[in-house]
Formats: sequence, C-alpha cells, structure tokens
Amino acid sequence: MIQTPYLLFLGDAPDGLAAKVAQGINDWRPENAVGQFRMEGCGADLGIANMTLEEGIAAGAKTLVIGVANRGGVISDAWKEILVKALTLGYDIASGLHNLLRDEKELMSAARVHGQTLFDVRIPSVAYPIANGKKRTGKRCLAVGTDCSVGKMYTGLCMDTEMQKRGMKSTFRPTGQTGILITGGGVPLDAVIADFMAGAVEYLTPDNDADHWDHIEGQGSLFHVSYSGVTMALIHGGQPDAIVLAHEPTRTHMRGLPDYQLPTLEALRDMVLPIARIANPDCQIVGVSVNTQKLNEEDAKACLADIETRMGLPATDPFRFGAEKLVDALEAI
Amino acid sequence: MIQTPYLLFLGDAPDGLAAKVAQGINDWRPENAVGQFRMEGCGADLGIANMTLEEGIAAGAKTLVIGVANRGGVISDAWKEILVKALTLGYDIASGLHNLLRDEKELMSAARVHGQTLFDVRIPSVAYPIANGKKRTGKRCLAVGTDCSVGKMYTGLCMDTEMQKRGMKSTFRPTGQTGILITGGGVPLDAVIADFMAGAVEYLTPDNDADHWDHIEGQGSLFHVSYSGVTMALIHGGQPDAIVLAHEPTRTHMRGLPDYQLPTLEALRDMVLPIARIANPDCQIVGVSVNTQKLNEEDAKACLADIETRMGLPATDPFRFGAEKLVDALEAI
Repeated sequence: MIQTPYLLFLGDAPDGLAAKVAQGINDWRPENAVGQFRMEGCGADLGIANMTLEEGIAAGAKTLVIGVANRGGVISDAWKEILVKALTLGYDIASGLHNLLRDEKELMSAARVHGQTLFDVRIPSVAYPIANGKKRTGKRCLAVGTDCSVGKMYTGLCMDTEMQKRGMKSTFRPTGQTGILITGGGVPLDAVIADFMAGAVEYLTPDNDADHWDHIEGQGSLFHVSYSGVTMALIHGGQPDAIVLAHEPTRTHMRGLPDYQLPTLEALRDMVLPIARIANPDCQIVGVSVNTQKLNEEDAKACLADIETRMGLPATDPFRFGAEKLVDALEAI
Repeated sequence: MIQTPYLLFLGDAPDGLAAKVAQGINDWRPENAVGQFRMEGCGADLGIANMTLEEGIAAGAKTLVIGVANRGGVISDAWKEILVKALTLGYDIASGLHNLLRDEKELMSAARVHGQTLFDVRIPSVAYPIANGKKRTGKRCLAVGTDCSVGKMYTGLCMDTEMQKRGMKSTFRPTGQTGILITGGGVPLDAVIADFMAGAVEYLTPDNDADHWDHIEGQGSLFHVSYSGVTMALIHGGQPDAIVLAHEPTRTHMRGLPDYQLPTLEALRDMVLPIARIANPDCQIVGVSVNTQKLNEEDAKACLADIETRMGLPATDPFRFGAEKLVDALEAI
C-alpha cells in the first residue's frame, strides 16, 4: 500500500485535463491530499493549498504522488530535480506514468540512499496466484460496460461513497492506475500476465464479512475485442453477486475501433449473465449506470427513463444524479 | 523463429511421459528432429537415432531442444555441463522449462562467447501490439474447449496435417510452449501481458491468401474461471471463421476446479458463437472434436454418433479416427 496522505505533484501541467489523476484523488479522497505542488507556469489548479515540498512534510504528507501526465513521455530534468529533493526530504513517490520511476538512475539512487520507496503503479508488484475459483465470503459488485471508458470506475466510486454514507460496509477495489493512486492500493490488471489475471482479482477481493460489499473497478468490455479478455478475467475472478451495466449513450463506435458498433444494453445483459453465472450462479444484474455527461439535463433524464422502461432495471447517472437507486438495489439482495 | 532441424535432448527423463515435448515434436514434425540425445539412465526413448552432440551437428542439427521436464524444477549440474558443451559446438538451445535458460549464468556466458541463442519459449520475446480488430484476409479456425487440456492442440495439428495432405494451404499457429517447440515459432499466450493478448493473436495470424487456413491453437476454456480471459482473447484476436468445439467426455469436473462442473457442448456452443461474432459476424461452428482416449473403440464411436445427433454437427476424434470430417466442413465454407 502507498502511504497516505499525499502531496499532489501537478508539475508543469499545461491544463486541468493533464492533471486528471490528481483531480480524481482530490474528488474522491480529499482527505488523502494535504495540498498540491505546482511548478512555475503550471496550468492546472485543484483549488487546494499550494505547498512547497517542505510545507507538505510539515503538513504530514508521506508520499509525493505524480498526478499529471508527463509531456512527450519523458521525465524531464526539471521534474527530476524536484523528485530527488522529495526523496531527500523523506517522501516516497508514487506514479502511474508509462515510463517508470525505477528506470531513472538518479531517482533509484536517491531512493536507496534515503530509504524511500518508488511506487510504479502501472506494473504489478505482487506475484499473483492462479485463480482457484473457490467461493469467497462477502459480496461483490462489478460494473461491466458496453464499451471501454464509459464510467465504470466512477460508478464503483459513487456506489462505495453512497454505501459509506449509509453506514454500510463497503470497499472500492481498484484495477487501474488512477484508481490505485486514488485509494493507495489495488491491482493494475491490464499489466498482469495472462495466466494470473483472474487470480489477481481473487487476491484483490478476498473473503470478507457477509454484509460487506467490494465494488470492483471494471475494465474494458466483453464487446471490445482489444481488451475483452481482461473483462472476462474480472468477471470470473471477481465472481460478482451483482452486476451494474455501464453505458455511454452518445458513442458512435467502440473506442479506438471505428469498424465496431456498440452493443445494445440488452445484448450486453444477455451475454454477461451466463458468463458471470459460471463463477457465481446467484449473480444478478441490478441496474444500469449511464454516463450522461454529453447530454443536457432533460435529455439525460429522458435517456434514463427510456432505459428503465426497456430494461426493467433502475437506471441512473450516479455521478450526476446520485447512486441511491443502485445502492437500493444492492440492499435488496 | 527457432532454427531447425533439432537434436532432441531427453536428458535423464525417468519415463516417456516426462519427455512429452520431445514426443510431440517427433509425432508432428519428425522432419524437424535429426535424432535424440539421452543421458545415462534415461527412461524415455522416441525410437529415433541416438546421437552424441557431435553427431547431431554432423547430421545438420542447429538447435538442441530440451524436450523433457527437469526434476524438481532445477537445471542440474549434469544437464548444465551438456548444455554448455552444446553451445560451444554451435547449437542454439530452446526450452519450455519454467526456470529460464537465461537465468543460468554459465549458459548465458557460453552463449555470448560462442554467439549462440537461448530460446526460452515460455516467455514472449516480442512486444506485441494492442489488437486493432481489423478484418484480416485468409481464413482462421480455432478449437474452443468445454475445459482445459481436452485436445485443442492435437485438433489443430490433425486438421493442419489433413489439409497439407489434400494440398490445401494451411498453417498451425501455436499459442503454447509445446506447440512453439514443435513448429519453431508462435506466441506463448499465457505469458503475455493482459492488454496485449488479443494483439498477440492478431500478430500470430496475419493477412494471408484468401484460401489459406490458420489453425490457431486453443487455450483454456470460456468455462474455466482461471483461464477464461485467455480464451476470450484468442476468440477476439483470432477472429475465427470456423470454430471446432473440443470435449473430453469422461471428465468429472473442470481441470483443477473440483467445485466446477463441465458445461455441455450445447452450453459451449450457445456461449461461444455470440462472442465470436463480435469479431467476425460470419463465424460458424463447423464440428466437434472429441478426445476419446479413455473410451474403448465401441464406446468412442457411440459417443461420437450421439454427439452428431444431438448437435447436428460432424464429430470425430481427429487423432484416433482422422480429421477428414472436420476438414470437409472447412472446405464447405
């Protein structure tokens, strides 16, 4: 686990979008961030306290989290100077960048000298087991999408937040880099070796109290030919009791695959349920999470109403209109 | 690609079963093996010429293939001495062992000095792309199983052999260690990073002549929760035109998963076809390959007849009774 709280490194982000990892941490776990560190000319601003590295330490920060994409995929000399200083001051550093902290000699050497840890969350640090398929105690919910990037992570985070609010036992279980940095732990599933994918999901969602819910972050889509194997491993390793269908109604084709049409929610339902019941015969589809960010409020509500009628399932945009309906459905199980 | 022909290293195999990789090479590509190298006390014998390392070189061998499992997962000193000598004499070495040749200092150093290559086929040597899902020219056939280890590799090899016999254009495309050592190339799919699985299968089965068939080696099973993600990636990366269902009728539970029952062939058919048609809307199920090795001839034939009636598809044990029916079905497409 990455130690919290964090100081969020925004570097020289040209704009807010480049700092979306930091934004995610601040949106979902504001208590995990003591402040933000911005370099000169930084175009992103989370609206939280600006701190120097020294001020971050004084505020209790344990880890400097790189919450920004690096330009051109290179860790610049300007960044490196700051990161080395952070290690010197006693920070660990965590990063989801494609190029790894551990491949930078100066950083490795400073980490070694000062006894600090570099977390490259893009690659696994655990030798995951092969899945054994054994029924585990506790309950699990998984969002599966008609496509990639339709809001599965936000669905899980919203449902977890709503459950916490109700005093229910609930944990968000990240399977991607952003989710791991938000919570401090998880499995970077897309980087796991094929044979161990389902085992990694079992490892992530172990036995738990009978009334505890894991919200497993979904990945890919059964209908996305590039990543469907990852989705399959999530379903069989996660053995969910409840599935939420996730959808973005304005997509014109599968993400990155212009020749592939999106499936209907009905087609997704009909495919996923027999697959999920191999691992958990009691699995149910409990609702639909619709990412309506590209619709105005009236259209969004009409879209949700239409889906509820067609599917006979509660439908909401949990980020926009709240996750109550979806959590109600889980409570009813 | 691993250079052929091979000298097959049987080492100190206690029995024939321990040398099943060598057996597979000799069964399927006898032209790839100039002879066998047996250590004192070797209990395996392929019935081909016994050769010293020097005799193998004289017979034209380019690669010493480790065709035997190592006892206790350790490359013994006795083996190492022979392998170093082989490198000195000008052999490459290829291995599917769990522990890697490249992790043995003496072997790496001898390979470097003598300019030879160590092939650890258990791990990928290529940075595979992410799958793009584009329709490729040529035809592809994939065996999908009700369970793991039900004869999918043998099905592909039998069909390839039958096609060659008929003068059809055909290539067997290995996705596992044994298959790779048999043919000299392929993709060790179970060791590929999750995000690149489907892309590795696309890489393995590129554009080809319109009347050429790839026989893609199947892996895992959609119904085997430990490995179903790998199977999914094979179906979506392979975009098969034809699927053969593979089955072992005497299995009492899924391999390694005592709590999981085998699906029926009907359940497999109903699940795989909608999945396959995402990547290839024209995909058809063309037949059933039944591994009848545990049945006597009468029972085997009764089992095949029953499956043909139930499924309305040609059924055969291609290794025992020939692959004609399955290849006829492909010719009819």
